[in-house]
Amino acid sequence: MYDKLVRSYNKELSYNGVEGERIARRLHAISRIGRTKQEGSRRLAFTPEETEAKEMVWEWMEKAGLQVRKDGAGNIIGRFEGNSSQTIISGSHLDSVPNGGHFDGPLGVLAALEVAQAWKDTGFKPEKSYEVVIFTDEEGARFRSGFTGSQAMTGLWEQEVKEKLTDENGKTFSQVLQENGLSFDTMRSAERDFRSIEAFIEVHIEQGKRLEKEDLPVGIVQGIAGPCWLNVRFHGTAGHAGNTPMNDRRDALVAASQFVQAVEELPPLISRSSVATVGKMEVSPNGVNVIPGEVNLTVDLRDIHEGNRDKLKEAVLLLAGKIADTRGVTVTTEEKINVTPVQVNRDMQQRAAQAMYDTLKQEPFFLPSGAGHDAMVMGQKTDIAMLFTRSKDGVSHTPEEWSSLDDCTQTVHVLKKLIEDLCRN
Amino acid sequence: MYDKLVRSYNKELSYNGVEGERIARRLHAISRIGRTKQEGSRRLAFTPEETEAKEMVWEWMEKAGLQVRKDGAGNIIGRFEGNSSQTIISGSHLDSVPNGGHFDGPLGVLAALEVAQAWKDTGFKPEKSYEVVIFTDEEGARFRSGFTGSQAMTGLWEQEVKEKLTDENGKTFSQVLQENGLSFDTMRSAERDFRSIEAFIEVHIEQGKRLEKEDLPVGIVQGIAGPCWLNVRFHGTAGHAGNTPMNDRRDALVAASQFVQAVEELPPLISRSSVATVGKMEVSPNGVNVIPGEVNLTVDLRDIHEGNRDKLKEAVLLLAGKIADTRGVTVTTEEKINVTPVQVNRDMQQRAAQAMYDTLKQEPFFLPSGAGHDAMVMGQKTDIAMLFTRSKDGVSHTPEEWSSLDDCTQTVHVLKKLIEDLCRN
Repeated sequence: MYDKLVRSYNKELSYNGVEGERIARRLHAISRIGRTKQEGSRRLAFTPEETEAKEMVWEWMEKAGLQVRKDGAGNIIGRFEGNSSQTIISGSHLDSVPNGGHFDGPLGVLAALEVAQAWKDTGFKPEKSYEVVIFTDEEGARFRSGFTGSQAMTGLWEQEVKEKLTDENGKTFSQVLQENGLSFDTMRSAERDFRSIEAFIEVHIEQGKRLEKEDLPVGIVQGIAGPCWLNVRFHGTAGHAGNTPMNDRRDALVAASQFVQAVEELPPLISRSSVATVGKMEVSPNGVNVIPGEVNLTVDLRDIHEGNRDKLKEAVLLLAGKIADTRGVTVTTEEKINVTPVQVNRDMQQRAAQAMYDTLKQEPFFLPSGAGHDAMVMGQKTDIAMLFTRSKDGVSHTPEEWSSLDDCTQTVHVLKKLIEDLCRN
Repeated sequence: MYDKLVRSYNKELSYNGVEGERIARRLHAISRIGRTKQEGSRRLAFTPEETEAKEMVWEWMEKAGLQVRKDGAGNIIGRFEGNSSQTIISGSHLDSVPNGGHFDGPLGVLAALEVAQAWKDTGFKPEKSYEVVIFTDEEGARFRSGFTGSQAMTGLWEQEVKEKLTDENGKTFSQVLQENGLSFDTMRSAERDFRSIEAFIEVHIEQGKRLEKEDLPVGIVQGIAGPCWLNVRFHGTAGHAGNTPMNDRRDALVAASQFVQAVEELPPLISRSSVATVGKMEVSPNGVNVIPGEVNLTVDLRDIHEGNRDKLKEAVLLLAGKIADTRGVTVTTEEKINVTPVQVNRDMQQRAAQAMYDTLKQEPFFLPSGAGHDAMVMGQKTDIAMLFTRSKDGVSHTPEEWSSLDDCTQTVHVLKKLIEDLCRN
């Protein structure tokens, strides 16, 4: 991975203490922990792989002159003590999905760390305090959950919810905490006083193709579109495909199909940042010669503006009812997840835009984040900003995930500029 | 089951040697072989349960004065030797789906047997020869195949196809033949000379609701709609549900949904007996937050007229291609099954109609068979007729399958009249 990264690297991008080659070496070193047969990463939360990656970065944090500690949720925090106790935080996570890529998470951690390392190497000292954080269990792949570290830091979690989680081996969340020397009590102790935390900045790969289309290395996130998942179940009448005349059917799949098609047409009517997707659908009984009696599907709705997303949700629910009526089938709906979207405030967007212009001499490009990030959780308690790095073909959560070292390094320069701005009194 | 059958039975329907109570006793006796927890039947092909049922009916055949033999495919044949070697055959099967009902198959066998028993009890002797047959493995539930017995009798099977079959325990078809004292060689020996076989008549439950809607006990089948199964695979591009704008998607499920909806509108444009069903559909990767990259579905197309069914198939293929083009996805199609529909010729339909009028004083009602039957296979080699018995709520292949004893007995009367007509020189 290192060779591939540096082969096409423009060495002139290593300046002001930021070193692309170091970022490449470190991305490579992390990528070797939990390497899968398909050349991906498997570093599930609270496993020896996640811990090994955290410990490796801990050492690099110390080299950068940071005071490092682990909090009660397993988050690793490297702190530079400035003249003021007011604190700016940056970071991301090191856990991955079961066969994930090598940028989603690690890039955000290494970018935040590279800022501290560059400061040390150039002798720069910010006025405010600065922290590099590695959040525990962002992906949630192990417990179908996620954001454990940022939830603990913000105090935005419920023990009853976490208590019900089990991994695929049947281990409970609490057993796994214990194996890692943690508990619900230590998790509670990880909650921070946000009066001294002024902002959280996260670098992440885009996981989409907007920057690639615009031919830009970096983009500025306007908001994070918290998902709303609606479970929709159409109930018709199963029957023999040969013996039921066309005019005597209540086919749940035909109703569901009409719904899927109509759902796709709704988002543009609401806003440019709205999206609606039916990704999961189960047909029952799913026999070639049986008219489907039931279809169970989930609609994923997102918008960075909560009001728009609510409008979209209302439209989808109305649509399901109308189609069921027309088709003579019944429909039941249930909200499974509803994550509040988080907006990046205008001041933070403008500061990020200025940092982008100052470093890259490029006009800023703003885009929404469709996926959730730790910044979404931190955004409930403090100002946030996010920088997206161009992601090849927009793919993520697969071994093919890729961002060029040029793009990664340029993002670090923008991040560094933005944090230096925020750390000024 | 016996009590439920006779409780509402109109005893006046027992006449001319036909006894509803005997039919009820025998349906009940067969239903006890392979009884499931849900009160259904599990008599898979070539299992001890199917064999036990065949041996029980074998004894009843002998009581009815028939000469009984087993052929090389395990079919049980009870023959009445008339003055002429020209032969009329009637019968059905005793195997079932894994949790099937008690009428699909057994009713056809017992109806054919009741005709012979009634003749014996009343001293009637037909001029032509008459055979009652129990076909082996009609349902095909064990090997996802079926019609083994009628295929062997007609010679319409290929060893290469049967050789590839395995059951869920990994046993090959040929191993299972061997366990039953049979082989591909003995199967070949079961082929009959159809010059002496003038007609095959099968009684079966309707497995649909047409007769129930018309309030008729019996219907006359016009033709058997052999199914054509088209596998249709839409390939789009998977992507993150949150990070892919609506106008940059190639969603395989939206394309498939448009297809499913349009397929439903085609049959009425072709003929009144055409039906088209998408019963089975798999979405991939089937994740709530992933735009579907691929959808794999099967279309089941049927018509009793081969020409109409071919037109329908052409229309469906055209539709798939058009939708794929419009949606920017690709589509591949594959024909998985194509069973030639079989028509009941006008003379046979008229004879059956006359028999219905003579016995029930009711105008004949004609209907298509959407499901396949042994008569479909026999129809490739000889004239066929089929009588359908009203089936409660049209359900079949479940323990809830039900036909009243009145309806069963009336069907036997029609069958008896029809066979007596056909057995006349």
